[in-house]
Amino acid sequence: MSRYFSGKYASLTPYVPGEQPKNREYIKLNTNENPYPPSAKAIEYASKAAKSLELYSDPDCLLLHKAIADNLGVKASQVMATNGSDEILNFAFMAFCDKETPAVFADITYGFYPVFSEINNLPFRTIPLKNDFTIDITDYYNAGGTVFIANPNAPSALALSVSEIEEIIKHNPDNIVVIDEAYVDFGTESCVKLINKYDNLLVTRTFSKSGSMAGARLGYGIACESLILDLFTVKYSTNPYNINSMTMAAGIGALEDWNYSEENCRKIIETREFVKKELSALGFEFTDSVTNFIFAKHNSISGEDFYSKMKENGILIRYFDKERIKDYNRITIGTLEQMKEFISVAKAITEGKI
Amino acid sequence: MSRYFSGKYASLTPYVPGEQPKNREYIKLNTNENPYPPSAKAIEYASKAAKSLELYSDPDCLLLHKAIADNLGVKASQVMATNGSDEILNFAFMAFCDKETPAVFADITYGFYPVFSEINNLPFRTIPLKNDFTIDITDYYNAGGTVFIANPNAPSALALSVSEIEEIIKHNPDNIVVIDEAYVDFGTESCVKLINKYDNLLVTRTFSKSGSMAGARLGYGIACESLILDLFTVKYSTNPYNINSMTMAAGIGALEDWNYSEENCRKIIETREFVKKELSALGFEFTDSVTNFIFAKHNSISGEDFYSKMKENGILIRYFDKERIKDYNRITIGTLEQMKEFISVAKAITEGKI
Repeated sequence: MSRYFSGKYASLTPYVPGEQPKNREYIKLNTNENPYPPSAKAIEYASKAAKSLELYSDPDCLLLHKAIADNLGVKASQVMATNGSDEILNFAFMAFCDKETPAVFADITYGFYPVFSEINNLPFRTIPLKNDFTIDITDYYNAGGTVFIANPNAPSALALSVSEIEEIIKHNPDNIVVIDEAYVDFGTESCVKLINKYDNLLVTRTFSKSGSMAGARLGYGIACESLILDLFTVKYSTNPYNINSMTMAAGIGALEDWNYSEENCRKIIETREFVKKELSALGFEFTDSVTNFIFAKHNSISGEDFYSKMKENGILIRYFDKERIKDYNRITIGTLEQMKEFISVAKAITEGKI
Repeated sequence: MSRYFSGKYASLTPYVPGEQPKNREYIKLNTNENPYPPSAKAIEYASKAAKSLELYSDPDCLLLHKAIADNLGVKASQVMATNGSDEILNFAFMAFCDKETPAVFADITYGFYPVFSEINNLPFRTIPLKNDFTIDITDYYNAGGTVFIANPNAPSALALSVSEIEEIIKHNPDNIVVIDEAYVDFGTESCVKLINKYDNLLVTRTFSKSGSMAGARLGYGIACESLILDLFTVKYSTNPYNINSMTMAAGIGALEDWNYSEENCRKIIETREFVKKELSALGFEFTDSVTNFIFAKHNSISGEDFYSKMKENGILIRYFDKERIKDYNRITIGTLEQMKEFISVAKAITEGKI
């Protein structure tokens, strides 16, 4: 760091995204991307928007907010879109945490939560998942801060039910509960409907996974109007034109054609269940994933070695050098063809043939 | 604001972008957009990128950084692209200011600087422009904080020379000087070349104005490698995938076809000089703009009334309800045809006919 870098960030450790090596072609199962392309309508609308880039994009995102609201059955004034869901999460850390209101989240969850805390100079407290990587909801009662729960959680791949989430919300009447639903479309019930019942719930979502639009950077939050107004205050004090016109148009296109994305999710779920069977047969242990990835380990090989051997054989998966989960790998569900190749390499590795 | 909104933002006043009314078609001369569409190559590359949105964009922006670096004659490691230049400016406030290092900027300049200070809970100090809206560079010697200078400045439309900027840099050896060159391509010499000589200079730029890409949201910073690394630390702790694939591709396309943008800038400069002559003939006073807008006032009508009458007649310009500049309007330079219409309405207003 330079001698000019602010001392307040002396101990800051940035987030490390999944690697994107450019030296060879890999089967990419390391960043939870959707293996299917975006909807034709998303592509068409984005291409059309590219022709008028000389004009600023709409900072109020009116058309996009309306499209999202219609899709979810809420009001447009209950939605705020952002440059990926990382941005809405960061805004939530900014708006709803401070020295007196720490962030509270699981020890094993999205690795960006502690980084958001540190970049905003906020205190945070972690709550250990149980040994089986599930959440004990009573651990979050009267949490004494703003609660962040990825539901389903990553990399554990497990979800709480809506009624369990509701208990957590009820037991934190003076604090915000943020439910990060990045992976909700692969088999978990959303708690969006609870926003009309509780003024302390913020749900965050993304088009990156189920919408096949990771490269477009489009996330959003859903909450009661007063929380959305708070988030707008942060947005208009940070980056008012945070979403470009092409991404906004792509989002509207994707929503008009949402059946296509739902069908892709169904295919991914089907493939995931196939992979679970195959991994079981090879002696892997894993949580019963409701996401587009599987969190698995094998007694005969370390997480790091399995990752390395996979990479040598042209397949990228994610390994976390972190206590409690270093035996595991996170494997994104690709196409059936990609996953058959993955299983075949996994078989060779566990049999000691490569 | 909700009862959950952090008390640290109790006095925060968000930035107010130029209005984007949707009730009728206006000649839009209020947000300093370029009247010409983006380069055909920018559109083509963006449309192509839209087809592969299922994959994350490259968080390191390698190809885009190389294209920008080649265009400017610097190294790719001296460049960092962001989601509009508002983002690189915000990152600079975050990285290089703190309680001990206030932000220092002019009283009349980009209205976002005080907002960036407040959202990051940073102290700031303003230095008045002289009566003629020029900067006395000695006011910035040993500024005791991180200096932000828009060069050319907005809305005053005037610029410092590279040697004047260099004096400011030399006289702040222990602090960063940020030169915001959003409007540099309309007739001002850039100080990018100074980055190899001074380790305390950050230059920020945007594709929004000269590049006809306001809707794509693409800005960047140029500095010595150690400052760029600091900014990367902030980016990777805030929003690693901050630029979507389509915008990245559009930026590369625009740079491959930069002659087209330069030709547009020449046309805008020519139109600006035409507008200056016409405004003089109508009795307007204005600074000698080197930007894509003119900052003008007329003795017979207030800034607010001129703005309102323009709007009634289908032309949007910008009015600032702010001490020292409330007599003025900021008028973006559009096409020659649009500006002839503007002059014709301005004539009717000053003659009291409408």
